[in-house]
Amino acid sequence: MQKITVRDLYKNTATYANQEVYICGWVRTCRDSKTFGFIELNDGSFFKNVQVVYDNTLANFEDITKLSISSSIKVTGTLVETPEAKQPFEIKATNVEIECLSPNDYPLQKKGHTTEFLREHAYLRPRTNLFSAVFRIRSVAAIAIHNYFQSQGYIYFHAPLITANDGEGAGEMFQVTTLDLDKIAESGKVDYSKDFFGKKVGLTVTGQLEGETFAMAYGKIYTFGPSFRAENSNTKTHASEFWMIEPEIAFCDLEELMDIEEDMLKYIVQDVLDKCPEEMAFLNKFIAPGLIEKLEKLLNSKFTRISHEDVITILKEANVDWEFKPEYGEDIAKEHEKYITEHFNGPVFITNWPKDIKAFYMKQNPDGKTVAAVDLEVPGAGELMGGSQREENYDKLLARMNELGMNTEELDWYLNLRKYGSCVHSGFGMGFERLLIYLTGVENIRDVIPYYRTPGNCDF
Amino acid sequence: MQKITVRDLYKNTATYANQEVYICGWVRTCRDSKTFGFIELNDGSFFKNVQVVYDNTLANFEDITKLSISSSIKVTGTLVETPEAKQPFEIKATNVEIECLSPNDYPLQKKGHTTEFLREHAYLRPRTNLFSAVFRIRSVAAIAIHNYFQSQGYIYFHAPLITANDGEGAGEMFQVTTLDLDKIAESGKVDYSKDFFGKKVGLTVTGQLEGETFAMAYGKIYTFGPSFRAENSNTKTHASEFWMIEPEIAFCDLEELMDIEEDMLKYIVQDVLDKCPEEMAFLNKFIAPGLIEKLEKLLNSKFTRISHEDVITILKEANVDWEFKPEYGEDIAKEHEKYITEHFNGPVFITNWPKDIKAFYMKQNPDGKTVAAVDLEVPGAGELMGGSQREENYDKLLARMNELGMNTEELDWYLNLRKYGSCVHSGFGMGFERLLIYLTGVENIRDVIPYYRTPGNCDF
Repeated sequence: MQKITVRDLYKNTATYANQEVYICGWVRTCRDSKTFGFIELNDGSFFKNVQVVYDNTLANFEDITKLSISSSIKVTGTLVETPEAKQPFEIKATNVEIECLSPNDYPLQKKGHTTEFLREHAYLRPRTNLFSAVFRIRSVAAIAIHNYFQSQGYIYFHAPLITANDGEGAGEMFQVTTLDLDKIAESGKVDYSKDFFGKKVGLTVTGQLEGETFAMAYGKIYTFGPSFRAENSNTKTHASEFWMIEPEIAFCDLEELMDIEEDMLKYIVQDVLDKCPEEMAFLNKFIAPGLIEKLEKLLNSKFTRISHEDVITILKEANVDWEFKPEYGEDIAKEHEKYITEHFNGPVFITNWPKDIKAFYMKQNPDGKTVAAVDLEVPGAGELMGGSQREENYDKLLARMNELGMNTEELDWYLNLRKYGSCVHSGFGMGFERLLIYLTGVENIRDVIPYYRTPGNCDF
Repeated sequence: MQKITVRDLYKNTATYANQEVYICGWVRTCRDSKTFGFIELNDGSFFKNVQVVYDNTLANFEDITKLSISSSIKVTGTLVETPEAKQPFEIKATNVEIECLSPNDYPLQKKGHTTEFLREHAYLRPRTNLFSAVFRIRSVAAIAIHNYFQSQGYIYFHAPLITANDGEGAGEMFQVTTLDLDKIAESGKVDYSKDFFGKKVGLTVTGQLEGETFAMAYGKIYTFGPSFRAENSNTKTHASEFWMIEPEIAFCDLEELMDIEEDMLKYIVQDVLDKCPEEMAFLNKFIAPGLIEKLEKLLNSKFTRISHEDVITILKEANVDWEFKPEYGEDIAKEHEKYITEHFNGPVFITNWPKDIKAFYMKQNPDGKTVAAVDLEVPGAGELMGGSQREENYDKLLARMNELGMNTEELDWYLNLRKYGSCVHSGFGMGFERLLIYLTGVENIRDVIPYYRTPGNCDF
């Protein structure tokens, strides 16, 4: 008999009413009395369980009553609508086949485990309500991102992960090698000519530079792939391995870039609200009260656009005892980000940042002090995207790279983009996990990545 | 004025007929006489160029005649339908703004460069017809894969890339470290407790094991992400960094797995033929004559299913002077793969392989000699997918791992999947670049990856 998913049963209940159906899944709870019992079955296709009712007319009734949490079973039965009950229907079982009886040492016996405990059992946590919701939203949001860019004519570009250039000249990189470290210790010599690529290489911190080369061919491209940081920081928002989205658009200036960022974010939020109503309702109730309201408010708000300089003025004039004093020409702190999104009661694009705190490739403004960069700050999550118009003038870019003491020879191909058909172009980066923190209300980045990597943690 | 893409002009020509349009792009060719000229403009949105006609009524006529290949320009003009010409329409320019005049040292001046030359200029090659086609198909095929699995209710799962387990116990791994190699040479000591993760880690060779943990929660999942091999092999089909698709399905046996593989492949092929007719026509004409016919034939064929043993019998009975003699219980060679797909005149699933040449996690058949593995061989490309039913029995899997001398403690979580709700389940892996070689007819894996990594090559 053809397997039917629990999702299908919920979405097309009327079609299956009084029909025989066949479902396979895992026991979430099980209770019984002398002559009958109930199983809450989850097959992973849907957030909700289906209720299976069985009775002692089944030959293996006694075995069924002994079913334990997480046991796998196959159920044949009739779908009966139950309009007056809590759940809209139940399955009256005619056959329950036990595929695997889970032993009593199953670690998630009871409910209410801490997220710390569940991280230690990361391979089981997607079986809980919280993580089932989070990782389904992760999947839905990832596809929403693809759908948005595809609908707008972008090309999906795979940036290389192993690279000899350090992208922003900023982030600390992991080294990748096939040299035998023990032999290095023994011989006292490091010979990169013997390494796999014949030189020192590492894991990418950004695919932007390579992305720009494809934007100059296809007009609009986006990356969506892993990125790495070897920073030894243990915060709730930093992971050593994470996924990034980096669109790059030719013939696009900073204003148009902000249009795209706003448009994309609203598209993703709408899609997740549309496709994950059960998951969002759960998160809204148990994890982050007000979550849905926050997201719906975003959909209806026009994002503010304001310069870094004007932001500093507002912060200085604010009647607040800052931990970090806001200064013109300097970066802003988390407390400032929070204040500004509250001040404008919604998302805020902060533009034209002091050039010395931003990356070398950003478009130099005529004032000689700022660059055409933009950070998007959202209420409750701080910086969600960082982007800029790129410096398209060869001489200006070269001068800036020299000023910063960069190796221009290694990046000659990047510089050459400014000779061979250069044009005004812009792009931004969005950390996928930051987005998920915003979408789910889950606070710790470790809880929105299936198997997180942070300093000292590389399990599974 | 609102930018319009060349794709839009081609898809909705009638709408824009006799209208003023504004397009931005790069000069592919340029020719002129005394009073007028033609520009072939490409904006990357479409495989084909648009013809721009200009004349000496334009103030900057002289400058326009000097336009060089790859220069970037912005054109305003009227779309005029030209039903009798080679191209269906042209743009009669009223304004041509030169954004960047490309110098004459642009490396791709003339046509007909070798693919080897273009690999050295990998940052420019997407501007050529061949690579423009290949990398658009790469994008379209990637999205087709997502669309297929999403339409079937799968969850997109991101497997970790940095890992402490070596997956198949097979592929050679890159090491990832933040230890200072020079200091190791100096001190003569390797201390992994000081490494970033506190132990020796590397880049993943497969996300399958982690994928199985999510299949046991969601029922159906797929990975689509990078994978790595530190093998020192310089062949046309091996890269050190590549993208893999690894679906994993609970309550699914080998027969059902083959249904899914066949269904997915046909979906992708159909989608690429539908969405990239211009690119496919180009490849069919200039790169791989017969390509479209080959793909259309696949769509209409029922894939053969045959056991490894029966394949060996056919090979032994064949009147062929084999370089490698086919033997029961042994692997088959490229020449055998080729023969078998030709023998059956289409794709062939070869099932039930000798257990000693396959991975530890594969379902052990009752004969004690074979496992429930399946390789899909396709005409002209050899092995495209490799999959298996997984051993779901705890004791049998443990015994096999011990037999192979594996570290069962490190993989206890994987073993535990066979205790906590184990079920019949199956999955397969498909190398994305192998698929692209098959789809595009391009022979070398270096030419279907934007920036390829092979031994000694890590440029850009």
